[in-house]
Amino acid sequence: MAIALNERKWGDFNGSSPLIAVYNSFHPLTPEMEALIDAHTFPISFRKNRYIISPIDRNRYLYLILKGVVRGFYKDDGTEITTWISRENEIVGTIRNLWTNEESDEYLQAIEDVDLIAIPHDLTTALYENFYEANIIGRKIMELHYKAACDRALICQLPTVKSRYRHLLTAFPGMVDRVPLKYIASFLGVRIETLSRVRTSEKNI
Amino acid sequence: MAIALNERKWGDFNGSSPLIAVYNSFHPLTPEMEALIDAHTFPISFRKNRYIISPIDRNRYLYLILKGVVRGFYKDDGTEITTWISRENEIVGTIRNLWTNEESDEYLQAIEDVDLIAIPHDLTTALYENFYEANIIGRKIMELHYKAACDRALICQLPTVKSRYRHLLTAFPGMVDRVPLKYIASFLGVRIETLSRVRTSEKNI
Repeated sequence: MAIALNERKWGDFNGSSPLIAVYNSFHPLTPEMEALIDAHTFPISFRKNRYIISPIDRNRYLYLILKGVVRGFYKDDGTEITTWISRENEIVGTIRNLWTNEESDEYLQAIEDVDLIAIPHDLTTALYENFYEANIIGRKIMELHYKAACDRALICQLPTVKSRYRHLLTAFPGMVDRVPLKYIASFLGVRIETLSRVRTSEKNI
Repeated sequence: MAIALNERKWGDFNGSSPLIAVYNSFHPLTPEMEALIDAHTFPISFRKNRYIISPIDRNRYLYLILKGVVRGFYKDDGTEITTWISRENEIVGTIRNLWTNEESDEYLQAIEDVDLIAIPHDLTTALYENFYEANIIGRKIMELHYKAACDRALICQLPTVKSRYRHLLTAFPGMVDRVPLKYIASFLGVRIETLSRVRTSEKNI
């Protein structure tokens, strides 16, 4: 019965959750783990500009991005601070309550129409508690996220707007064509007018 | 024989490596893991301003800070970019080659006289490969490092120098008394003159 349901749910995805292939690329999963992932993850889509998570909701999921671009942001005295911008094949969620159902003051917003796989925190917790393989996968994924977060910090610590912009072009090719300039300026910790000027002068080189 | 050696090595530390207590606080270690950690970690000290790691050396260790403050930095066109500043009970190392012996362009420098425990990458790898508990501990420590890196990025994305400085005072109380202003300015991605002005005006509130 559960298997029939899963086949229907994942009919458009070669019959199983796309998350399985992602996790398998870090460490082989057991059949029990794959069955749990098929049963508890699910596809979900959001239109451009919609909030995927906001502080009003108690967030209970991480999301694997299949298509589209998502940004994370906070509000600081009414000003939006874009903290990260992610795209296809990345796993995103609120940072402060990584696998827990606590409240968070973070927003996740679709920058384009997005297709996601929702990963319930309860599933993540169950995998960690019951399968040592999950901790190997989790450790490796956290290492990648850690390096990415360090790169984000480094970009904002570069001394000139020009060097930040150039670093961004290398780290995330295509971002400037997919993401509104105001979000990129906030992500880089610079004023939009300054970034706009730098972008124009870099184009003319 | 090995036990006698370890007793001598850890005589000043209640008989065993201080790293054991740190790891045990995340998940219980097995006796075999504790023996490996006692045998392969070791205490080491550096005087203020000395480089703990520089790109000239091939780095083979992470370090647990027992006493003192350490900063990590890169050079960007000859300018030093301070990427992080860490203190007691934190584990530090180069970011790009987390547990591997590859080359990295990062420096680690003692900001005060520091006492450290060196953790060989070969030990970390052996623990991950042979003990599932190590992956639980590694995953939990990486989560903490990930959140800390996100906080570092967020500080530099705040729109004003004043808000960055205030966030820093909360995130790392006492840093401004222990760390030269030039490193803090670089860490915050601001000019030293601007930071100095903000610090003076904040003191007078």
